[in-house]
Order: sequence, then C-alpha cells, then structure tokens
Amino acid sequence: MANWHEWAELLERVREENPLVHNITNVVVTNWTANGLLALGASPVMAYAKEEVGEMAKLAGALVLNIGTLNDKEVEAMLVAGQAANEAGVPVIFDPVGAGATRYRTETARRIAEQVKLAVIRGNAAEIANMIGEAWTIKGVDAGGGSGDRVALAKRAAEQLGAVVAITGKEDVVADGQTTYLIQNGHPLLTKVTGAGCLLTSVIGAFAAVERDAAAAAVAALVYYGVAAEQAAAKAGERGPGSFQTAFLDALAYTSVDDVKRHGRVEQR
Amino acid sequence: MANWHEWAELLERVREENPLVHNITNVVVTNWTANGLLALGASPVMAYAKEEVGEMAKLAGALVLNIGTLNDKEVEAMLVAGQAANEAGVPVIFDPVGAGATRYRTETARRIAEQVKLAVIRGNAAEIANMIGEAWTIKGVDAGGGSGDRVALAKRAAEQLGAVVAITGKEDVVADGQTTYLIQNGHPLLTKVTGAGCLLTSVIGAFAAVERDAAAAAVAALVYYGVAAEQAAAKAGERGPGSFQTAFLDALAYTSVDDVKRHGRVEQR
Amino acid sequence: MANWHEWAELLERVREENPLVHNITNVVVTNWTANGLLALGASPVMAYAKEEVGEMAKLAGALVLNIGTLNDKEVEAMLVAGQAANEAGVPVIFDPVGAGATRYRTETARRIAEQVKLAVIRGNAAEIANMIGEAWTIKGVDAGGGSGDRVALAKRAAEQLGAVVAITGKEDVVADGQTTYLIQNGHPLLTKVTGAGCLLTSVIGAFAAVERDAAAAAVAALVYYGVAAEQAAAKAGERGPGSFQTAFLDALAYTSVDDVKRHGRVEQR
Repeated sequence: MANWHEWAELLERVREENPLVHNITNVVVTNWTANGLLALGASPVMAYAKEEVGEMAKLAGALVLNIGTLNDKEVEAMLVAGQAANEAGVPVIFDPVGAGATRYRTETARRIAEQVKLAVIRGNAAEIANMIGEAWTIKGVDAGGGSGDRVALAKRAAEQLGAVVAITGKEDVVADGQTTYLIQNGHPLLTKVTGAGCLLTSVIGAFAAVERDAAAAAVAALVYYGVAAEQAAAKAGERGPGSFQTAFLDALAYTSVDDVKRHGRVEQR
Repeated sequence: MANWHEWAELLERVREENPLVHNITNVVVTNWTANGLLALGASPVMAYAKEEVGEMAKLAGALVLNIGTLNDKEVEAMLVAGQAANEAGVPVIFDPVGAGATRYRTETARRIAEQVKLAVIRGNAAEIANMIGEAWTIKGVDAGGGSGDRVALAKRAAEQLGAVVAITGKEDVVADGQTTYLIQNGHPLLTKVTGAGCLLTSVIGAFAAVERDAAAAAVAALVYYGVAAEQAAAKAGERGPGSFQTAFLDALAYTSVDDVKRHGRVEQR
Repeated sequence: MANWHEWAELLERVREENPLVHNITNVVVTNWTANGLLALGASPVMAYAKEEVGEMAKLAGALVLNIGTLNDKEVEAMLVAGQAANEAGVPVIFDPVGAGATRYRTETARRIAEQVKLAVIRGNAAEIANMIGEAWTIKGVDAGGGSGDRVALAKRAAEQLGAVVAITGKEDVVADGQTTYLIQNGHPLLTKVTGAGCLLTSVIGAFAAVERDAAAAAVAALVYYGVAAEQAAAKAGERGPGSFQTAFLDALAYTSVDDVKRHGRVEQR
C-alpha cells in the first residue's frame, strides 16, 4: 500500500482548494450535509432541477448522488447530472440509501450504477450486497446485523460494479478490486446522528475532487471522518446525541492532518 | 384509569424493540424528526415516492403522516401508504399541521381522516377544531390563543373522528372517546423550536409501534416528551433556543422511565 | 439619514407584533430559517403548493422567496404567491440564490423580478450583478472574490430593479436608489453556516412586516443580525462552526435593541 499517511494529507489539499461539491441528496440530510462540508473546508451546492443539474455538475469538483428520499423527478435529474459529470471528467460518488428495503430503491440504485460511471459507492453492507443481487438483511434504511464477510463482499462489489466500494459500519472496508483497506476509526454515536453516512459520502466527494485516485480519496476521507468522530465523542459524547452532533461539526473543522496521522488505524488486506 | 406509571414503562419497550417508524413529513422538520427518533431509541425512515411508500409502510411498526408542507404528490403518497398500513395492521398517526389556515390544508386533513383509519391524531386546538368543522383562530400553522374548552373539544373530536385525539399546548389533553387524560409537563421553550409538535407526533408513532392501546401510547409519549423538555430547560434553557434544542436531543436519549414516573403530572378526567 | 438608532428599535416591534413570515425557500435551509425566525421572535410558516400559497401569502406580514433549490413547480408557486402578496400589499423579499451559476437560476431570478413587485432583494455581489446582466464571478452559489465596486453596483441594481437592494458580504451595502448605507457588523463564521444568507433574507422579511420603509427595515435587520453574530462568535467562536451555529440561534433571541445600538456600525454614503 502507498503509505496512507501520505493520503491523510489530502485533507490539507481539500482545505486549500475548497472544491465545489454538487449534491443531489435526500431531504433529511441537506442542511447537515452542507454544514458538514463547510466545516471540512469544502464548498457545497445543492441543485436538483433537470434544467440546471447538468450545467452545475460540470462546474463542480465532484458530484454526489444519494437516493435517501428518491422520487421520479430526482432520479431523472441524477441521471442527467451523472452523465454530464462523466462527460466532463468530474468524479461521481454514489450513496444507495436503503437499497434492498424496497424494490424501487434497489432497482433505482442498479439503474444509476448502469447508466453512470461511478468513482466511489459508499453504503452499509446490506445496501452494497443488494446492489449486486446478494441477500442481506436490511431494516428500513439501516443495515441489519448480518455477519457475512464484509471484506469479501466489498471486493466482489468493486469488481462487479467497476468502482471503488466503501462499506461502512463498525469497521470500514474500502476495496478497489485489487487492494482492500480496513479503517478502524469512528464512534457508535455516529449511529445516533441522522445522515452520518450521507455526509460521509459527500466528504468522500470533497476528497475525490482533489485526488483522482478514488481509493486514496475514500480511505483518506474515512479515516479523517472517523478520527473527527472520536475527538467529538471525547469532548461531548457523555452528554448525548445533540451535544455530540454539535461537537462533531466543530471537530470536522479543527481535525488536522496530524490528528489523522496520530489516531488513524488503517491496514491493508 | 390504568395506572399511568405502567404506561411510562413503554419508553423502555421502545428502546428495546427499536421500532421502525415510517414518516411522510414536511421539509422543515425531516432532519429534526429523524434525530429525535434516534435519540429516543427508535429507528426512523423517510420515504415519499408513491412507488415505494406502500411497501415501506408495511415494513414499519408505525406510519406517521404530516401535512406541514403538503403537495399533491405527497398527499397521494400519504393515502397509498395509509391504506397499506391499514391493511397490514400498522398504526397510523396523523398531524394535521395548519388545518384551518388554508382551504387546501383543511380539506386535505379531512380527506386523509376519511380515507385512512387513524390510530392517533395530534394537533393544536385550532387544527383539531378545524378537522371537525368548528371555528377556532389559527395563525399560520400555530394555534391562536383561543380559550375554548379543550377537554370538551378533544372528546368531541375523538368521537367524530374515531381515533385517539391528542391536543397539545400549555396543557396536553388525550381523549379516546371514553376517557380523557391531562398531561401537565413540557416547557415554553418548545414553542421556540420548529417542529417540536411534529417530532412529538412521530414519538407517539414510536410508542404506538410497541403498544396497541393507542391512548396508552399517546399518554406515555406525551409525558416522556414533556419531562425531557423540562430536563433540557433546566440544563440549558437560560442560554437560549439554540442551546435548548441541543439539550433537548440529549434529554430525549437520557430521560429514563424513573425520570418520567418521578416528574410526570398526569390526571384522568 | 434618519438616525439608524431609531430603526434599531424595529427589533422590539418585531418581538411585540410577532409577524407571520411566509417562506418559499430551499430544502437546505428550511429548518434553520424557521428556527432563526422563532429565535428572533417572528412566526415562520412554510407553504409551497400552488393550491394554497396565494391564500397563505395574503395572511402573512411578509413573503420571502428564495430560489436556492428551485424547480418548475416551486417557481410557479412563487409567482402565484408573489402576485397575491402584491395585491394584498404584503411586502415581498427576494433571495436570488446562485443567480449567475446556471442559466436556469439567472433566468428565473429575472423572471421573478419582472413579474412580482419586490420590496427588498438580498444577495451577494455576484447574484445581484447577474440579475442586472453584469458579469461577476460566482462559484456554485457563493460569490467569487470579485473586487468590483459594491456600492455602485447596489445603486445601479436598486435603480434598475426598482427595489431596495442589499448586497451582503464582509461589508453589507443597502441601496434604495437615493441613499446608500454601509453596515460593518457580522463575523466570518457566518460563512461556515449554511443558509446564513438565506435566514438573513427571511429576517429582513420579519422587519419589513412591521415597517413599510423597506430600506429602514433592511438596515435594521442587517445590523441586528451582524451584532448577534458578533456576540455568538465571542461566546463560542473558538470552538468551531457547530458551536457557533447553536450560539447564534441563542444570540438571535437575546440580542437587544441596546446591544444593537451599542455595537452597530452603520454609515450613510
């Protein structure tokens, strides 16, 4: 593996370049996603109308598609934006929220993966499994407690989908088909903040905007995000999920490359 | 009355069973509602497309319908989801936000009550009055300062609508047609947090998911919510509405059955 | 200039009259906008459906239109609401988010300005310039670092658009065609909170609801908002953008007329 300490420095590059990240995301997490990207040092934009998404996607450093509250108009806009991004060489990051929970979500997730070239797909194990037609329990939009082999799943999905796949959970797995990385940062309180996964997908977008090696961008984003969560939990975790949420936005801003290098736990498989 | 102290223990059941609550709610409060349900210990999902709401509602422990920012597509989805929930025996909780403010809201609220069997309807006095064709002042989506008899109103509405009715305000009233309960917990700072009522409706949904006696579920949810608000106000109230909001999410997580029993003020009429 | 200290007292009038502010705004900032208006002491309502926006706008003290995540249905609703407000003499405040970023936004912003009589338009320099067909760099929905003469731009825009124009940024400019005001309050952390500009537009709406001199309302709103930000930054700024956001909601509630008079920095040009 390239030394992941080098990749950790992408955080600094995000803050210097302040990339524009175009999000077509769900109505639950729009505000949280925008604030998280601002805290990181990126520049968020949300634009959903088919009349403008192609133009906006081409202006952006990365495009993030998230089907958390999908509807027919937004799916159409995602396809238009995704294809415009592909033409312009803008990396597309995909979050298949709830794939497997309803047929509409599963089919839409697969349709987007077929019609748009994706750089990174981030989801929980159930969502990723359902994208490649494998069974995995899912509860609403959260992964069930399936105990399958997540490393093997990430590899298979990366091969079949032709994209870097990040499966997040207690331990995060990033696979690009050849190499697999495990990241052991993060904190259980993240599961008490809605959109923690959705924001992470957008953070991967910010890193992918400044680094064309999508696996490097994903690993760097995940380890930064996990370390920030640990720092926030240490400051405010015992007070509860509201205080943690506020502290996490703070931590996304103050977490430094040094913090990431010192506290990151990344290994290659 | 059954001893309401027994009902207070439903809080523990929610935390053990972690019920899936499907919300079709307004764009102002989606994030807040999801975070509040997570803090409580329930599992929120938002899904709005007619292509999937029936399937999602059947998977859920409760379905919550909220017309705060209604439009024709969402109303259609609410009816589809509501009827699917009815078929599957999933309780439906309804929040008629702003009924009485515009004709569209009043008519939609009545239409939903006619076409979907509702377990609990929660609103302010003006909204509930307008649902049964009685005059009550309303200002935007907030109740005016009407001084009508809220206990009698709740009873009449419960009879006419065939559902448990919860009228919330300075004092909360729950009526199931036979019995009426008064809950005197809560805090004025709740009126400074947008969606405090909307989240409460979804919290009733979480309780109704684990207890088929809808009046018991509503009373238990209201007293828990009011006690949590009091604890949050004691911790952070003097700092302002932003700090209160954060402290309230914390309190939704740490408020215990014992806290509720100790501080709850419930009486039967 | 009228003594701006007199205008500062409009804050008290907002808190006494608690005006209803009808917002048709973007999905990123709905919750934040509602909470900010509540903290100020106004009464927010969001209503988007063409079936009801005309009725709601006529009930309101002010109507705020914001194209941050526009789509064809919402634009139609904005025009219906705007014309209803015009008929009823309700002031309309406009936020042309991202005008200049895509053709759709630029054209929609101009269309709204043509078809609705606007009392105040608030935007960054790039958005205002693009509304009157002048070039200015824009990045996503944020103003680029253009160094043009913002005072002259505000004057030209006010004349051409026939409305009070507020250009906000490091220094705020308010122009009504005759007179120009500079406000030097605020804090850089506002740029780290999504929707800081959008909420400000709605706050101008609350002030315009109690004062028909739109320039006075805009100046009073801007200086209050800037002073509140300074107080929040002094309390929580060093902790990060999450803590600042919470502290800012608190400050919107506790900032007094005296605070504004003491810390306001307003001059006439």
